[in-house]
Amino acid sequence: MPGPTPAKSPVRRADAQRNIAAILEAAVNALSRNPDASVSEIAKAAGVGRVTLYGHFPNRDDLVEAALASAIEQGHAALDAVDLTGDTRQALGRLVHSSWQLVNQSRSLLLAAQGVLPPGRIRDLHAGPVARVEGLVKRGQEEGVFRRDLSTSWLVGVMHSVMHNAADEINAGRLDPDQAAAFITATVLAAFTPPGGRVPS
Amino acid sequence: MPGPTPAKSPVRRADAQRNIAAILEAAVNALSRNPDASVSEIAKAAGVGRVTLYGHFPNRDDLVEAALASAIEQGHAALDAVDLTGDTRQALGRLVHSSWQLVNQSRSLLLAAQGVLPPGRIRDLHAGPVARVEGLVKRGQEEGVFRRDLSTSWLVGVMHSVMHNAADEINAGRLDPDQAAAFITATVLAAFTPPGGRVPS
Repeated sequence: MPGPTPAKSPVRRADAQRNIAAILEAAVNALSRNPDASVSEIAKAAGVGRVTLYGHFPNRDDLVEAALASAIEQGHAALDAVDLTGDTRQALGRLVHSSWQLVNQSRSLLLAAQGVLPPGRIRDLHAGPVARVEGLVKRGQEEGVFRRDLSTSWLVGVMHSVMHNAADEINAGRLDPDQAAAFITATVLAAFTPPGGRVPS
Repeated sequence: MPGPTPAKSPVRRADAQRNIAAILEAAVNALSRNPDASVSEIAKAAGVGRVTLYGHFPNRDDLVEAALASAIEQGHAALDAVDLTGDTRQALGRLVHSSWQLVNQSRSLLLAAQGVLPPGRIRDLHAGPVARVEGLVKRGQEEGVFRRDLSTSWLVGVMHSVMHNAADEINAGRLDPDQAAAFITATVLAAFTPPGGRVPS
């Protein structure tokens, strides 16, 4: 039987936290440049040994998942700055635009994550951003600006999948990155328009 | 050095083709019931040994990819029966509806494929169905029924991702399978409506 885990001193715990933060930062940066970035490369960029890295993230999949979670968390915090007041359709346009900038920066990291995580897990990691979109979509549905014949969660899923589709299309060379924000916004606003209503020009 | 590959007799070649067909049919059936179906299970259902199976598909990922390709090819052939003449919007409605029945039947197989193939590869395997949708979308754009401010390939990608989103949402328990076809059709037709035009009721 293994003995009791030795209590870590506050100094060792602070070291571990510093290492984890450095590893995650290095992983987000490396995977945002190259979806195939190796664990060794990330350990080196973080200034830690491979053994230390594996002590925190037992395999590359865990590291990729933690890097995506970290990027989403940072992005979610950055989106606090988006003004969601006033006209709901315009507010959604601003949120789509700012969210897309973040997804676009992380296209390569997203590709790495798609290689190791099922789509459901990737969507679950977006719980924070999803909740924010959900609140705005609900408001638009209550105001009658967005359609009510489709469920809130469906509309949120449509926005999520249209943005990720844009990332895939750019990666495949079928979409000009400069057009993506306008294409996504136009598509989402049209998809949310109530039956009988006019699609925004 | 290995000797020259022995020329296969017509009989042995016919055997191999029969085995491959049986393996693919068993793989499509097994993975459509359980995304985690094992290679042994599939070999057993196909009535071949594991060694024979591995001779044709060196690893499980190859087998999953070939099973998805086979299901898409069969589905693509089945969609020949869909009437694409007449009113373009109604024709697209019929195509979306029939395509969704096929995607829905293969939700579990799609989930298996998403676990081993990047989204770009999955979309590439849909080249046949994609070309069919593309022809119809182009016609609608030329007629002014579908929007022209977004590219044909973007609109096709939107339909693809909205359908796959529905599969993911059902798998996650957030969407009632009975509602999916109506939700997808309503979303796609709204997304394709030209700016200033009315969303179909």
